[in-house]
Amino acid sequence: MDQPDAFSARCPTRQILDRIADKWTVLLLGLLASRTMRFNELRRGVDGLSQKVLSQTLKSLERDGLVTRAAYPTVPVTVEYAITDLGRTLAATLEPLRLWAEGHMEAVEKARIDFDQRQQAAA
Amino acid sequence: MDQPDAFSARCPTRQILDRIADKWTVLLLGLLASRTMRFNELRRGVDGLSQKVLSQTLKSLERDGLVTRAAYPTVPVTVEYAITDLGRTLAATLEPLRLWAEGHMEAVEKARIDFDQRQQAAA
Repeated sequence: MDQPDAFSARCPTRQILDRIADKWTVLLLGLLASRTMRFNELRRGVDGLSQKVLSQTLKSLERDGLVTRAAYPTVPVTVEYAITDLGRTLAATLEPLRLWAEGHMEAVEKARIDFDQRQQAAA
Repeated sequence: MDQPDAFSARCPTRQILDRIADKWTVLLLGLLASRTMRFNELRRGVDGLSQKVLSQTLKSLERDGLVTRAAYPTVPVTVEYAITDLGRTLAATLEPLRLWAEGHMEAVEKARIDFDQRQQAAA
């Protein structure tokens, strides 16, 4: 087999990169890295994430081996999500991305204002 | 001002995270971290990236202060893109993400096969 190479569209790595380079993945694995959480806890933990997208994202994360899902026969049923060892290695890789966004927010916003002013001046 | 918090939908950090947690951003900043490149070099460097999406992504990266664009009056015009100091800090944060995808491709693919088999067995 060829070496994995995300720059090649045919390498499975490209599709994996597409899945993991995703803001919901960053935020959900960030929460699950601290502890096991129920569906509604995750929903409350990530402001603005719809129930549908949360379900879809959790299912992808489960299929990719990054989280496990456990259902308990309570009434109503309790569903808990836990990060796997593989997911933990990814969470450690993604956390710096969230911290970069939080730490460089002002620099990015200043760059945008400068860019928009240059565009207006040139128009 | 409140502390930057990507878990809040109203924080500008959320939108910045959405922009930077993107496979094209990962791949393009990965290329530009090594050297200045022309538009067509970038297009050839990232297999499967259309001219339109490349243009849009480069414009976003420029607006966010992550790359600079320089046009030279040759015939045809030469357009070069270079990473900024801010972009370099992001590229250093994104490279582990690409390496994670490349390094864990087999584990993710195995998890997917196992998941799909469990789903079929349960159906």
